Amino acid sequence: MAASWEESVEYSINTIYLLFSAYLVFVMQLGFAMLCAGSVRAKNAMNIMLTNVVDAVVGSLSFYIFGFAFAFGEGAHSNPFIGTSFFALSDIPSSSYGYDYSFFLFQWAFAIAVAGITSGSIAERTQFSAYLIFSCFLSGFVYPVVVHWVWSDSGWLSPNSRNLLLGSGAIDFAGSGVVHLVGGVAGLWGSFIEGPRVGRFDAFGKPIPIRGHNATLVVLGTFLLWFGWFGFNPGSFDKILVAYPNTSDQGNWTAVGRTAVITTLAGSTAGIVTLFGRRLLVGHWDALDVCNGVLGGFVAITSGCAVVEPWAAVVCGFFAAWVLIGLNILALKLKFDDPLEATQLHGGCGAWGLIFTGLFAKEEFVIQAYNSGTVGTVRPYGLLMGGGWGLLGAQVTEVLVIAGWVSLTMGPLFYALDSLQILRISVDEEVAGLDVSSHGGHAYVHSDENHPRFYAEYVSLQDNGS
Amino acid sequence: MAASWEESVEYSINTIYLLFSAYLVFVMQLGFAMLCAGSVRAKNAMNIMLTNVVDAVVGSLSFYIFGFAFAFGEGAHSNPFIGTSFFALSDIPSSSYGYDYSFFLFQWAFAIAVAGITSGSIAERTQFSAYLIFSCFLSGFVYPVVVHWVWSDSGWLSPNSRNLLLGSGAIDFAGSGVVHLVGGVAGLWGSFIEGPRVGRFDAFGKPIPIRGHNATLVVLGTFLLWFGWFGFNPGSFDKILVAYPNTSDQGNWTAVGRTAVITTLAGSTAGIVTLFGRRLLVGHWDALDVCNGVLGGFVAITSGCAVVEPWAAVVCGFFAAWVLIGLNILALKLKFDDPLEATQLHGGCGAWGLIFTGLFAKEEFVIQAYNSGTVGTVRPYGLLMGGGWGLLGAQVTEVLVIAGWVSLTMGPLFYALDSLQILRISVDEEVAGLDVSSHGGHAYVHSDENHPRFYAEYVSLQDNGS
Amino acid sequence: MAASWEESVEYSINTIYLLFSAYLVFVMQLGFAMLCAGSVRAKNAMNIMLTNVVDAVVGSLSFYIFGFAFAFGEGAHSNPFIGTSFFALSDIPSSSYGYDYSFFLFQWAFAIAVAGITSGSIAERTQFSAYLIFSCFLSGFVYPVVVHWVWSDSGWLSPNSRNLLLGSGAIDFAGSGVVHLVGGVAGLWGSFIEGPRVGRFDAFGKPIPIRGHNATLVVLGTFLLWFGWFGFNPGSFDKILVAYPNTSDQGNWTAVGRTAVITTLAGSTAGIVTLFGRRLLVGHWDALDVCNGVLGGFVAITSGCAVVEPWAAVVCGFFAAWVLIGLNILALKLKFDDPLEATQLHGGCGAWGLIFTGLFAKEEFVIQAYNSGTVGTVRPYGLLMGGGWGLLGAQVTEVLVIAGWVSLTMGPLFYALDSLQILRISVDEEVAGLDVSSHGGHAYVHSDENHPRFYAEYVSLQDNGS
Repeated sequence: MAASWEESVEYSINTIYLLFSAYLVFVMQLGFAMLCAGSVRAKNAMNIMLTNVVDAVVGSLSFYIFGFAFAFGEGAHSNPFIGTSFFALSDIPSSSYGYDYSFFLFQWAFAIAVAGITSGSIAERTQFSAYLIFSCFLSGFVYPVVVHWVWSDSGWLSPNSRNLLLGSGAIDFAGSGVVHLVGGVAGLWGSFIEGPRVGRFDAFGKPIPIRGHNATLVVLGTFLLWFGWFGFNPGSFDKILVAYPNTSDQGNWTAVGRTAVITTLAGSTAGIVTLFGRRLLVGHWDALDVCNGVLGGFVAITSGCAVVEPWAAVVCGFFAAWVLIGLNILALKLKFDDPLEATQLHGGCGAWGLIFTGLFAKEEFVIQAYNSGTVGTVRPYGLLMGGGWGLLGAQVTEVLVIAGWVSLTMGPLFYALDSLQILRISVDEEVAGLDVSSHGGHAYVHSDENHPRFYAEYVSLQDNGS
Repeated sequence: MAASWEESVEYSINTIYLLFSAYLVFVMQLGFAMLCAGSVRAKNAMNIMLTNVVDAVVGSLSFYIFGFAFAFGEGAHSNPFIGTSFFALSDIPSSSYGYDYSFFLFQWAFAIAVAGITSGSIAERTQFSAYLIFSCFLSGFVYPVVVHWVWSDSGWLSPNSRNLLLGSGAIDFAGSGVVHLVGGVAGLWGSFIEGPRVGRFDAFGKPIPIRGHNATLVVLGTFLLWFGWFGFNPGSFDKILVAYPNTSDQGNWTAVGRTAVITTLAGSTAGIVTLFGRRLLVGHWDALDVCNGVLGGFVAITSGCAVVEPWAAVVCGFFAAWVLIGLNILALKLKFDDPLEATQLHGGCGAWGLIFTGLFAKEEFVIQAYNSGTVGTVRPYGLLMGGGWGLLGAQVTEVLVIAGWVSLTMGPLFYALDSLQILRISVDEEVAGLDVSSHGGHAYVHSDENHPRFYAEYVSLQDNGS
Repeated sequence: MAASWEESVEYSINTIYLLFSAYLVFVMQLGFAMLCAGSVRAKNAMNIMLTNVVDAVVGSLSFYIFGFAFAFGEGAHSNPFIGTSFFALSDIPSSSYGYDYSFFLFQWAFAIAVAGITSGSIAERTQFSAYLIFSCFLSGFVYPVVVHWVWSDSGWLSPNSRNLLLGSGAIDFAGSGVVHLVGGVAGLWGSFIEGPRVGRFDAFGKPIPIRGHNATLVVLGTFLLWFGWFGFNPGSFDKILVAYPNTSDQGNWTAVGRTAVITTLAGSTAGIVTLFGRRLLVGHWDALDVCNGVLGGFVAITSGCAVVEPWAAVVCGFFAAWVLIGLNILALKLKFDDPLEATQLHGGCGAWGLIFTGLFAKEEFVIQAYNSGTVGTVRPYGLLMGGGWGLLGAQVTEVLVIAGWVSLTMGPLFYALDSLQILRISVDEEVAGLDVSSHGGHAYVHSDENHPRFYAEYVSLQDNGS
């Protein structure tokens, strides 16, 4: 009646592995909050931190009520496009599909991250009520649908489905496309429709740097994201207790460790390349750009982290840095203003990561990650590794359909919000800063808080109700 | 002679689960430090951070020498009121009681958190030597005694004892009462006896907001506490490798994951309600109140997190937000000044959490959490779930006896310290700030630190000995 | 062909334990970054954070390509002095030596920490290009060689080798010597050759305190390091699933938990002693010195954490605090300026830790840690525990050879860099701060960033390329 001892051991081991990975992924929400806060001006710090907190709390409820269902709802009415069961965790845990609460929590931590990516693109100039609408729509609907396509067993792009697209399905192991490209494309539209921040380009179209207010927070956020990525990528195996038939001592435990190492190598390489690249281009050693370079390497390797060799991670990171540097130069030329570079970083490096996997995925690792190493499995793998065009075709397809789907959903939403004049704040509010205009005061109060100016402001803003 | 392979596997799995949970709970100490630092004025930041560090280091030694013994000391002289063995870890690890070092570490991380809660209530106006006395007494004696009552096998309120109070015992799974209500009631007395900070109410009794100096730290602390709560609540099962007899694939691994999900839902709901509630009441979107709302939801669900359904977590969080909002309004009316709202948040939401569990605990989950799911077990559960008055009675009893015990111990202590004039700092010191008067300088040194004013101050304060 | 179910369970359990420990050790890199940032002046915050990020990214590649090979490269050409295989992870995972990727990641996290220690000693006055050279050399060559001596199976000082030095080998369980003393001695030479910061001593040789700019960051960093140490010390068993033959319920799981408890007790004791010691010496309660005291206790216990009783950890921490206090007084007398006290803290307490282990190691625990508790094993242990002079001799040997090896390698390197005038920045740059002179701007931008002075600075520094 009860689970056998052996089954109990397996459930316990896999649950510990997945739950603690989920906790690490959750830390990325904190990492984003600190990265974003440090990258904006002090007058908008409270606003952007609130958006990160709101992503988490609103995302929790929406993912609980319908997001998880859209993403992973299998069953009698399952279809390749959207899930239709498990609303509000009904029928969870599900023996049939192997969904326990730990799986829900792991996926929840991914879901709340997506809107955080986009929040960077529209920072410092967006009305908070518009943010609420956009955040719900993105993490509650647009994102879960993509998850269903790529990660659920019935998704049309999934490498686990019965009818593999191009005989392959897209390999997006931890979500270069599903998470980062989705967030980046949404950010592209938001940032494009809102336009640049006041003062970002002068009357002659010349860019004027707007520096974030606190580099310490940027470094704090970057390291926290790195820490969290150890949950994001290695955690995406879902189970660690899976032995591979063709070796005497390897299994998912080997691949999980390798994924952590590979993630580290890709991020580090991208960081080093950015360090020296920016030194050549700008003339000084730029800590903040190195941070973004590291993150770009992580974003790129997230798709292929489970299926490539360590040396390939170095290749991945090397090009990720140049993708980021190149897109940043291009953005300046086009007068495109994304305060956190989220479009370039998550969109650009995310797309590169999908292509990279199509070029460098190793046959043995693909079969281990997606067929538990079953001997005799035949499936496409990286083009440059001799695996044919099938996988690369699926990867390119994922890039295109994500770009299309997110553009078709988020583009009109941002356009509608803009037409209704509830998207962007007024110029006066923007100059004053969102914290004073919308959030009741500055994030920082200096030791002269009893100074008349401060005093008057507090009383007028707070005293009526608190 | 040695443990069998099966036993070794069980010990290893349960130890990994409990130790890493303990590490997460420890992070809450950092979370409290950052939350408190950000919520006070810059001139007292060093002081409140020192109190958090001191809670950890002093609490470590006192819990090692006698706190753990008072809480969990079983044996020949065991009694329902206080433990009497295992002083200084003698006879640990204990095969008889299943106490290994990992259990000590997990409980240690809880113990050091209690004084941290109260430190918020008495912030910005307490002498540091008084803090040392209070902190030792609370975490070394007052708290461990409550732990013994509710969590040890011989405690008179324990749901695990042989003689269950009201046939039920109180269900305070991870400590809404044992930890948070204890800390909150202690804070109530400390804050009440010290009185409001200088300038908190004007001559007409009208409240004057005193804002914390750094909202980024508040958000950082809140997210770190959230992260730590994944150890606090799901970790409180102590063992993950326990199969339930009435299902084929569920066990503590399922309940641990569900507890993490439920904790998240309660905190998120409370955060959302606070966000919109404060918008209605105050007129702006308040990030700091959302943070406190999230924490209030966590505090409330901590008692029942293992024994309620996910939907009930939403109910719990909804009311937790209004308990917090309501008590904050009441505190203003009564001119009660608790700088961190610790009394309202940890005390109020902690009490609500205990009552909530008495209303919503589900029979199946109670039997799983406290009787390993043994078929045929009969015990009271939530009143609204049809489980009778036994559990609710025990929960109300826990609220009352904690309020009474902490009042009878901490009230006189604070009164005595106050009478001896070693509790509160002078008005001059309060205006100048604790950091300069007691801790040798400000927490922050601006780039003009070679400015004569700073220079003189440093030299006078530091140069005599460093 | 595949691993058996039992083997798979063992691999999974040990991998989870080691990987998540590695993740915690990685957090120490963040902890160092925050500790260092808070301890320097605002004008150098960006610089020191960049050095920490660079340690991580450059260290990743160098440890991948050759560092790991120098440290753990066993095989046909293995020798007691330096490893010679596994370059660029070739032949990893290795069944023969039990090296899986998780072991590499754990060791990687240690390797990147070493340069971080030394970065504190040479803070606020070092050219960034010199930092790059020193960091590569230290973490890529000097440190891995010491690892090989002490931790690899073929090392001449190793307690696991066939030919135990003095019949014992040195017990440096998690690296008081291998990590901290190496970093501290390197810092000693760097700091000595560079000389004190401008303004640290006045014309009469009287010390002028230079305070760090942000105490909150120091506390944040300290707590993060504490959190990370739970990976550093308890994680160093490598495997948790090892039963001890002479007890029915103990194994590495017991020792891992005990190590966590012991680490906590040593750090806490050192913190308390520093708190009261500094109160007596300086006259105020100093939060920052308590933080350093806690860290000193951790550094000291790192060598013996697995092989001493809990009460001995209290002894260890007590003396560690006085070692630190004493060396700080000595440093002032000698006009030695190490901004982070890294020489005193990591060097002094690290050396004390090695000696402490030679005095207090308990026979039973030594045999458990190094011989899996095999009954009948005979080997030296702590002198004061009756274990003879063998272990103490090996410990003293480790102190001396590390001091000698690091001096012979890092001393000439710093001397050469200094002779080439690429080590120290100019006085003008030092007064202006490294962030403006080398890194393109300050770490902090205040709300008046549109002020003409700031504006002009940005444009001149950034606009040419970004």
